[in-house]
Amino acid sequence: MIIIMEPEASETQIQNVINHIHDLGIKTVVNRGVVQTVIAAIGETAKYSTEHFETLDGVRKVERIQVPFKLASRDSHHDDTVVVINNNVKFGGDNAPVIIAGPCSVENEETLLAIAKVAKECGAKMLRGGAFKPRTGPRTFEGLGKLGLEFLDIARKETGLAVVTEVMDARDLDLVCEFTDMLQVGARNMQNFTLLNEVGGVNKPVLLKRGLSATIDEWLLAAERIMDKGNSQIIMCERGIRTFDNKYTRNTADIAAIPVVKHLSHLPVIFDPSHAAGKWNLVTPLAKAAVVAGANGLIIEIHPEPEKALSDGPQTLNFDNFKKLCKDLNKLTSVSLHTKK
Amino acid sequence: MIIIMEPEASETQIQNVINHIHDLGIKTVVNRGVVQTVIAAIGETAKYSTEHFETLDGVRKVERIQVPFKLASRDSHHDDTVVVINNNVKFGGDNAPVIIAGPCSVENEETLLAIAKVAKECGAKMLRGGAFKPRTGPRTFEGLGKLGLEFLDIARKETGLAVVTEVMDARDLDLVCEFTDMLQVGARNMQNFTLLNEVGGVNKPVLLKRGLSATIDEWLLAAERIMDKGNSQIIMCERGIRTFDNKYTRNTADIAAIPVVKHLSHLPVIFDPSHAAGKWNLVTPLAKAAVVAGANGLIIEIHPEPEKALSDGPQTLNFDNFKKLCKDLNKLTSVSLHTKK
Amino acid sequence: MIIIMEPEASETQIQNVINHIHDLGIKTVVNRGVVQTVIAAIGETAKYSTEHFETLDGVRKVERIQVPFKLASRDSHHDDTVVVINNNVKFGGDNAPVIIAGPCSVENEETLLAIAKVAKECGAKMLRGGAFKPRTGPRTFEGLGKLGLEFLDIARKETGLAVVTEVMDARDLDLVCEFTDMLQVGARNMQNFTLLNEVGGVNKPVLLKRGLSATIDEWLLAAERIMDKGNSQIIMCERGIRTFDNKYTRNTADIAAIPVVKHLSHLPVIFDPSHAAGKWNLVTPLAKAAVVAGANGLIIEIHPEPEKALSDGPQTLNFDNFKKLCKDLNKLTSVSLHTKK
Amino acid sequence: MIIIMEPEASETQIQNVINHIHDLGIKTVVNRGVVQTVIAAIGETAKYSTEHFETLDGVRKVERIQVPFKLASRDSHHDDTVVVINNNVKFGGDNAPVIIAGPCSVENEETLLAIAKVAKECGAKMLRGGAFKPRTGPRTFEGLGKLGLEFLDIARKETGLAVVTEVMDARDLDLVCEFTDMLQVGARNMQNFTLLNEVGGVNKPVLLKRGLSATIDEWLLAAERIMDKGNSQIIMCERGIRTFDNKYTRNTADIAAIPVVKHLSHLPVIFDPSHAAGKWNLVTPLAKAAVVAGANGLIIEIHPEPEKALSDGPQTLNFDNFKKLCKDLNKLTSVSLHTKK
Repeated sequence: MIIIMEPEASETQIQNVINHIHDLGIKTVVNRGVVQTVIAAIGETAKYSTEHFETLDGVRKVERIQVPFKLASRDSHHDDTVVVINNNVKFGGDNAPVIIAGPCSVENEETLLAIAKVAKECGAKMLRGGAFKPRTGPRTFEGLGKLGLEFLDIARKETGLAVVTEVMDARDLDLVCEFTDMLQVGARNMQNFTLLNEVGGVNKPVLLKRGLSATIDEWLLAAERIMDKGNSQIIMCERGIRTFDNKYTRNTADIAAIPVVKHLSHLPVIFDPSHAAGKWNLVTPLAKAAVVAGANGLIIEIHPEPEKALSDGPQTLNFDNFKKLCKDLNKLTSVSLHTKK
Repeated sequence: MIIIMEPEASETQIQNVINHIHDLGIKTVVNRGVVQTVIAAIGETAKYSTEHFETLDGVRKVERIQVPFKLASRDSHHDDTVVVINNNVKFGGDNAPVIIAGPCSVENEETLLAIAKVAKECGAKMLRGGAFKPRTGPRTFEGLGKLGLEFLDIARKETGLAVVTEVMDARDLDLVCEFTDMLQVGARNMQNFTLLNEVGGVNKPVLLKRGLSATIDEWLLAAERIMDKGNSQIIMCERGIRTFDNKYTRNTADIAAIPVVKHLSHLPVIFDPSHAAGKWNLVTPLAKAAVVAGANGLIIEIHPEPEKALSDGPQTLNFDNFKKLCKDLNKLTSVSLHTKK
Repeated sequence: MIIIMEPEASETQIQNVINHIHDLGIKTVVNRGVVQTVIAAIGETAKYSTEHFETLDGVRKVERIQVPFKLASRDSHHDDTVVVINNNVKFGGDNAPVIIAGPCSVENEETLLAIAKVAKECGAKMLRGGAFKPRTGPRTFEGLGKLGLEFLDIARKETGLAVVTEVMDARDLDLVCEFTDMLQVGARNMQNFTLLNEVGGVNKPVLLKRGLSATIDEWLLAAERIMDKGNSQIIMCERGIRTFDNKYTRNTADIAAIPVVKHLSHLPVIFDPSHAAGKWNLVTPLAKAAVVAGANGLIIEIHPEPEKALSDGPQTLNFDNFKKLCKDLNKLTSVSLHTKK
Repeated sequence: MIIIMEPEASETQIQNVINHIHDLGIKTVVNRGVVQTVIAAIGETAKYSTEHFETLDGVRKVERIQVPFKLASRDSHHDDTVVVINNNVKFGGDNAPVIIAGPCSVENEETLLAIAKVAKECGAKMLRGGAFKPRTGPRTFEGLGKLGLEFLDIARKETGLAVVTEVMDARDLDLVCEFTDMLQVGARNMQNFTLLNEVGGVNKPVLLKRGLSATIDEWLLAAERIMDKGNSQIIMCERGIRTFDNKYTRNTADIAAIPVVKHLSHLPVIFDPSHAAGKWNLVTPLAKAAVVAGANGLIIEIHPEPEKALSDGPQTLNFDNFKKLCKDLNKLTSVSLHTKK
C-alpha cells in the first residue's frame, strides 16, 4: 500500500499515519520528496481497504499495489485453470473453444429438443436455456421454473449435451443443482453477494457473467468471493457493458476484456455475443472476433423461429445462421490455434 | 407502439407486420411515407415488449409511446404519493425534506446510541445503519447481522427515531421487518428481481436505491415491480451513477434525476450524498444541492470518529460537520419552500 | 512518480529501471517488499509522462504523485483567482455568483436587444449569444457570423452588459476579440489544442467549457495549456457530461465537479444548466443546485419565445421563468453566503 | 418525424402542432390513440431538428424516422464505396484489409525509414506518422511539424508507401496536403466543425477517427459534413471509446461498431488497435478480432524500440511482434474471406 501525503501535511500528520500503520503490525518505508512525502506500507495489507488510510489527516491518496483478487489472480496460481464438466467438456488451457447454445428461455419440450439436436449436430458441447428468467419489468414471461428444468433434463439425456441454466435465488439452488451441470450467475446478480456466497458452497461449476457496469476488478472480485467460499470451478463470461451509445447495440462488447482477464487470472473466459450485441446480425462477427481474441468458449442464443421466441428474439440466431457460424468458427479455430505461440 | 419499416421493406413484409398486430387483437393505423412506411399499433400494447416486433422481417425500429412503468407513473396517479412511517414521518408532497442519518454499519451499541442522539438533536427523523453489509470483496467486515438489528431496535426505543436498514436476502425478510420501520433495497440489488418480488409482498415502506448504472426507466420499473406485487409505499433514492470519471468522486451525483423522477412519477425521491460523493467534504455541497433541486429527503452517513468507522469512513461526516449541515439545510429549506410555486 | 514492478520482475529489470531514472538526473528510493519492489522517483518528474516508464521491462504500474496541472493547481497558487471583466464583473473569491444570460444564437438585433434588457433588469451582469454555432449535422443554422458579433456589440453599448461569445476557429480570434469581453471555448473544442494555444496568447478572459466526456484532470489540463501560453484569466464552466442515460436529460449535470474543481484549483467555476439539462423545466432546479454547491456563476439560455428560437429551444427559459429563477437565486445566495464559513 | 403528444394534451395543443407542421409545407397523418395522440409528419423533414417540435406545447417526445446522415447512408448509396489512394491502395468493398503502420510521431529520418521498410516488408500498404501531435497536457513533445512532413515524404519516395498524417489546424491544410496521400482527422477533432468543413473542400481522402465519446450517429454526421462540402473519399476509423473502466485498457474497443457502420453506411471502416487498447500486448488480439469482424483495414503503431518512442510507447508494437501479427492476419484474412458469403 502506498500512502501519498498532501504537500502541506504536517510532520505530526505524517508521524500519525506511520504510527497507525505500525499499530497494525505493518512495516513502513518513508520517502520524503521535494514536494510531498510518500509512505510505503510493506507486509500483510491485503485485509485493509484503501479507505482505511484515506480518512487519516493529511493523506491525499492511497494506492494498493497488490491485486485485491488473490485466489483468482495469476500471481497466486500461474497456470491456466481448466474447468471440466461431466468429465468431458473442457474450458480453458489449450482446449478448443467450447460452444454452448440454446434458447433464451425454455418454452416447451418439443422446441427445446429440436434446438438441442441442432446444437449437438453443429458441434456444441453444452445446452443453455433459462427456466428462471430475470426481466426488467413485471408482467412479462418469467420462465417455466421447475418444469423448464425438467425439460432441460430430458434434452440432456436425449442428446448427451451438458446443461447450464441460471439460478436467481439462493432458495432454488438445490433444485437447480439437481437438474444441471453448470450454474449460471447472471449479469444482474454479479454483485448479489448472498447468491455468490451460496454458489461458492456447492460442488458445481459456475458460469459468472460480468455485470452491466462491472469493472474487471469487480468481476474478478465476484469470482474471488465464490473461490473464497470453496468453489474454484469458475468460468468468466463477458457479455457486453453499458456505455453511452446503445442505439444500434444492446450493450458494448468489450472484446479486450477477454485477453485482459486471461492475463490477470488463470480462470477460463468465454463470450456471449447474443447479449453483447442484442441484434442477431451482429452475433456472427462478434462471435468470430471473440474466438480470435482468445475466448475459451461462446454462449449463443438459438431458436428455430426467433420471431416467435418468448424472449430475446432480436438477438437470437436461427438454425441456418447458427450452422454457418459454427462452420466458420471451425476454420478460424484451426488457424488461430496454429498462430498462438 | 410505433413500428418503422425499412425503406426497402416489401409490401408483403408490411402486410405481415399488420396481420401480426391484428392477430394480437390490436388495431393499426398505417402511414405510407415517401421514404418508408410507419405503422402505429393502437390499444393494449403494454404487455408486449418492443423486441416482439423488432424481429419481424422488414422492421427497422420500434418505439414505445406509453411509459412502461404504469403504476409508478403520474399518468396513472397524478398527485404526489406521501409515504408515512410510523404515523409521523412523512416523505413527499409538501412536507419538508426528511433527514435520515446514521453510521454505514452498526458497530456496537454505545456508538450507535451516541450517533442516534446526535441525529435526533440535529432534527433527523430516522436512523440508518447496516446490519447486513454488501461488500465488493470477500474477507471484509460484513455487518453484525441480527445483533446489529437488535442494536437498531434499542436505539429506536431510546430516541423514538424510526429505523431503516438494508435487506440483502429474501430469507432475512421476516427478521428485518421485525426490527425496522423501512426496508432498504441497495443499489446492487435494484435488479435482484427475487428480492423485489418479496418486498412487494410485505406491508412495510421500501427505500429503493438506484442501481449504479440503472437508467431512470429501469429504476422506475424496479418500483413498478414492487407495486405490482402490492406494496406502494416506495421512496426512490438517487445515490450517484457510474460514469467515466471517478478519480475525485466515488460516483457521479445525478442531481437532475431528482426533478426528472418527480416529474415522471408520484413517488417521493430522496438523495444519498454520502455514496454519491464518496468523500465527506463533498457531502455538504451535494446535500444542499439536492434539497434545492426538490429532494424529499436525505440519507447521510455520520460517525463520531469517521477515521475509525469499520466501513465507508472517507464519506462519513463527523458530528460537527453534520450539525453545521443541518443548520444550513434548515435555512435553505425555508427559502426554497417559499420559492416553490 | 511511483513505479510498481511485477512480482516476478528480475533483479536485472529492477536495476534497469533504476538506471533509466538516474540517467534522467532523478533520484530514486527503492522499497523491496515481500511480494514486489516499488521504486519512488524523487525530483523533477513532471515533464515525463507515466507511459515513459510503463514501457520498461518488468514494470506493472506507474503512478504520478503530483498533479499534472501545475499552474491551475492550488498547490502552486493557494488563494482564489478572481477574474474581472471590464473592471466591474467579478468571478470567484467571495463575490456573489454572476449571472450570464442570453440566447443560444444571435438571431437579429431586435430580439437580442429585448433579451439583453430583460437580462439586465433581472440582475444578469453579462450577455451571452452565439455568432458562430457548432452544429452536429451540416445543413443547419450555423450563426450570423460577423453580423452576430455586431449585434452583440450594439446590445453591449445599449445595456452596459459585458459580452461573451464562442470562438470556434483560431482564424476568427481577432474578430471575436474586437467585439467581446470574454471568449468562450466550447465543449467540443476543449481539446482543440490549436485553439487553446491561441486563446492562451491573447489578453482576454476565457470561459472554458468542460468537454462532453472530459475528465476533471483533462479539463484542468486544458486550462493549464492556456495558462502555459500566458493567459491566466480563465473561468471553468461545467455543462454536463455524457453518460449511459440521456433519455430525459441531454447530459448528466455533474454538480459535484463544482466543489471538486474549486478544491483542486484556484480558478473560478461556473455552471451551464441549459446544456446540462437540455430541458427548460430542469434549468431552474439545476441552477439553484449549482449555486448552493458553490458555483461562482451561471450561464443561462433565455429567449422571448423559446419555441421559435433557431437553436436550443427546448432548453431555453422564457422571460417569466427566468425572472422567477433570478428572484429565487437572490434568496438562495443571501442564505448560502451566510452559511459559507 | 413522429410527434407523440402528452396524454393530457388538449385539442387546441394538438391542432397547434398540426398547423405548425402544415406551415412548413409538410403533410401530417394523425392517430388518436386511447391514451394519447400521435402525429406523423410526412415529407421533407430532414432539415428540421427534432427539438424544433419538442418545444411546442403538449408534445411529449419527437422521433426522427429517417437517418440524419443522408449522404453517408446506405439508404442513398447502396453499394460499398471503395476509397482508392494513389491508384493502388484500395479500402472497402471486397478488397483485403489494408494495413497502415508507422510510429506515433515522426522522430527523425533514420528511425522513420527503418520503420517504413519493415512496414513494407510485412505487407503494409501505407505509412502513418504524426508531424503535428495533439497532447492532453502542455510542455510535452508536440511533433516536428513541417520537418516531420518532409521526413514522411522521403520515406514515401524511398518505399513507395502512401502516407497518412494528422491535420489539426485548418491553417496547415495546404502544407499537409502537399506532403501526404491521406489526411487524418483525429478523435479529439471529430467535432471540430471548422476543420471538417475545410477537409471537405480538398481533393484528398480523409481518415476520420471516431471521437472518444462520439455516438455512431455523431461519427456518421461528421462524415456527412465532409461529404456535404464535396469530399466523399472518407474512411471511418474506430479507435476505442471512453467507458467507466480504463484501468487495464486506455479505451474500450468497440468492435461491434465495425459491422454496425458497415451496415448503416457505404463507407469503408478500419480499426486502430493501438489507441483502442493502449497496451501493446492487446494490439494483436484486437487487430485480429477487428479483421474477422469485417474491418477494411488496420492502423497500427510500430517502433524499433517502443520504450524509447517519444510518445505512445506502451501501445506500440516492436518489429518482431508486428511481423508475427502480419503473418497471423494473412492466415485469418484468407479464411474469413472464404466465409464471407
